[in-house]
Amino acid sequence: MDLERSVGIVETKTATLGDLRLDNGSVLSPTLIAYETYGTLSPAKDNAILVCHALSGDAHAAGYHSSSEKRPGWWDDYIGPGKSFDTNQFFIISSNVIGGCKGSSGPISINPVSGKPYGSSFPFVSIKDMVEAQKLLIDSFGIQKLFCVAGGSMGGMQALQWSISYPDFLTNCIILASSPEHSAMQIAFNEVGRQAILSDPNWNNGLYEDNASPRKGLALARMVGHITYLSDDKMREKFGRNPPRGNLLNSDFAVGSYLIYQGESFVDRFDANSYIYVTKALDHFSLGKGQELTKALSPAQCRFLIISYSSDWLYPPAQSREIVKSLEAADKRVFYVELNTKEGHDSFLLPNAKQEDVINGFLKMPVDE
Amino acid sequence: MDLERSVGIVETKTATLGDLRLDNGSVLSPTLIAYETYGTLSPAKDNAILVCHALSGDAHAAGYHSSSEKRPGWWDDYIGPGKSFDTNQFFIISSNVIGGCKGSSGPISINPVSGKPYGSSFPFVSIKDMVEAQKLLIDSFGIQKLFCVAGGSMGGMQALQWSISYPDFLTNCIILASSPEHSAMQIAFNEVGRQAILSDPNWNNGLYEDNASPRKGLALARMVGHITYLSDDKMREKFGRNPPRGNLLNSDFAVGSYLIYQGESFVDRFDANSYIYVTKALDHFSLGKGQELTKALSPAQCRFLIISYSSDWLYPPAQSREIVKSLEAADKRVFYVELNTKEGHDSFLLPNAKQEDVINGFLKMPVDE
Repeated sequence: MDLERSVGIVETKTATLGDLRLDNGSVLSPTLIAYETYGTLSPAKDNAILVCHALSGDAHAAGYHSSSEKRPGWWDDYIGPGKSFDTNQFFIISSNVIGGCKGSSGPISINPVSGKPYGSSFPFVSIKDMVEAQKLLIDSFGIQKLFCVAGGSMGGMQALQWSISYPDFLTNCIILASSPEHSAMQIAFNEVGRQAILSDPNWNNGLYEDNASPRKGLALARMVGHITYLSDDKMREKFGRNPPRGNLLNSDFAVGSYLIYQGESFVDRFDANSYIYVTKALDHFSLGKGQELTKALSPAQCRFLIISYSSDWLYPPAQSREIVKSLEAADKRVFYVELNTKEGHDSFLLPNAKQEDVINGFLKMPVDE
Repeated sequence: MDLERSVGIVETKTATLGDLRLDNGSVLSPTLIAYETYGTLSPAKDNAILVCHALSGDAHAAGYHSSSEKRPGWWDDYIGPGKSFDTNQFFIISSNVIGGCKGSSGPISINPVSGKPYGSSFPFVSIKDMVEAQKLLIDSFGIQKLFCVAGGSMGGMQALQWSISYPDFLTNCIILASSPEHSAMQIAFNEVGRQAILSDPNWNNGLYEDNASPRKGLALARMVGHITYLSDDKMREKFGRNPPRGNLLNSDFAVGSYLIYQGESFVDRFDANSYIYVTKALDHFSLGKGQELTKALSPAQCRFLIISYSSDWLYPPAQSREIVKSLEAADKRVFYVELNTKEGHDSFLLPNAKQEDVINGFLKMPVDE
């Protein structure tokens, strides 16, 4: 544990918030939001940054839950004292999305009506709903305006949605490795994951018990997903055609045993229903293209930083450029950087001095520039 | 059924051939090979072309099995009177690979010792073994030298293997959308497919009954595979973000219901064990890279035509260029074309006037050129 530039030991808290009317008409009551904060909220409450996580993320974005935790939060490379999201200056809020399974309202939550977990009776959740839930949380802090909303992949969709759902509520918006809507191929990979879960005999229409969950289906979904987060080059460098190390685990190749391990460890920390809900939220998110997208983004008032990654074939740079083009057409202030990386879609999560520089520069720019 | 340029009604025959000692030391006895032929073998037996199929293909490469068959063989666009592989001129032989499930010896064959299907007790089969089995078939025709061996994807690996297993047995070699070895990513996608089958409760260590086979696992494997055979662009054009047509089939999107349909229809025509055997043959095939590959290819004496496709991200053009580079380094005669297509890996199977021209030109070139 390197504590020099770390936010140190942190804790996930849960806020019990009011009713939330969802896009589909259902009402969530109460709305539970798991969150963490790093840094100190200024007296004027004008230094808050909301970071939004991706598909399998959670509220634990930085620091450690205990001194024995092996790995810090998922964006610890960018959040901390002296880091891009500098906790000496900013108050960082990270919350788990609704529909997820890391403390916010979702399929594993207890349905107050039945006294049992919702399972697949949990209502459909959209990216916009996730943002609405985050808004309840931000309001609970008495914050009138966020200095920035930032996120990669699904987190980028949330950030983009923030900019148009609450145009006068954020000064800056940072969108990494994201898209204004999923392409057919992105939907296709998610669909295979969902079908793997639905094909598991333990699926039981989403009403499985905790000790008989569709583990194999969820593991397969994660394996497929994991391939798409990496790049051909990165996999070549990491595994090549090497034989497996350690246990054979049913694969003749290192890359196979790695994927099997990733799949199996994922099911210990994620819920199959949530996987379906959250991937559907991703697939259904659509701000359109071209003129339609330009129109959708026209309410935005914040300043944008869009970052894409040369090796990201799942959310290719062309999707980021669509956002940029439409923002420019709508006469918004937008900065765009395509970083040359080889780590694929995961690039936005990984240490990258250039990415730090770009985010630092963006956040330090005078607001009226 | 367009019979003008078709080979017409054809029949898959089965040759019962002698013993075959496999790469792993096992002996296949007898060796059954399902095959079709189109055109007429010349008296000098010097006009034979062997075409080799890909992962899910079979011996039925051209023509129709009956007047009611809806679709002709898998390479009918290129095989027939006046087509690239012109049956007015050439005698085309197409055979099913061993390890497969379309008539040649494979896991669904009866093990003469037990009187029951081999299932997962069928021996491991390599690409080289597939070529050895084809050699037995070619020998049975009394052919001394093939005018050409041609194939795409796994068929290209077989063609490449022919050129070094039997250097003086072929005049020309055509390799489409192929690779001298699978990358980590190619292995990874196959591994997910295999794991999907292994995760199916009907798997039973590969000793399943025909009426209780791992259908769901095999369907998932096919869904994953199918995504990789297409391109992002092609899927966008074909499906976009459209809702499903007809039955919902558990998907919110057209691309999802298409994949589900592809998966479900595949299990009616393919065996799960064969899927494992053949993908393992693919993953284990390795002629190396650079100098190692150059050395592996040094015995070849034939003339090569290598074709790759701009949109093929599963077998990217760089893999074809590796073959070309090593052939050139080994001072072989090689022609290389990268075709600009948008259909992804499937491009080699699809009608393409440019591909026709290239193959026609290659086959018509004087042999000593």
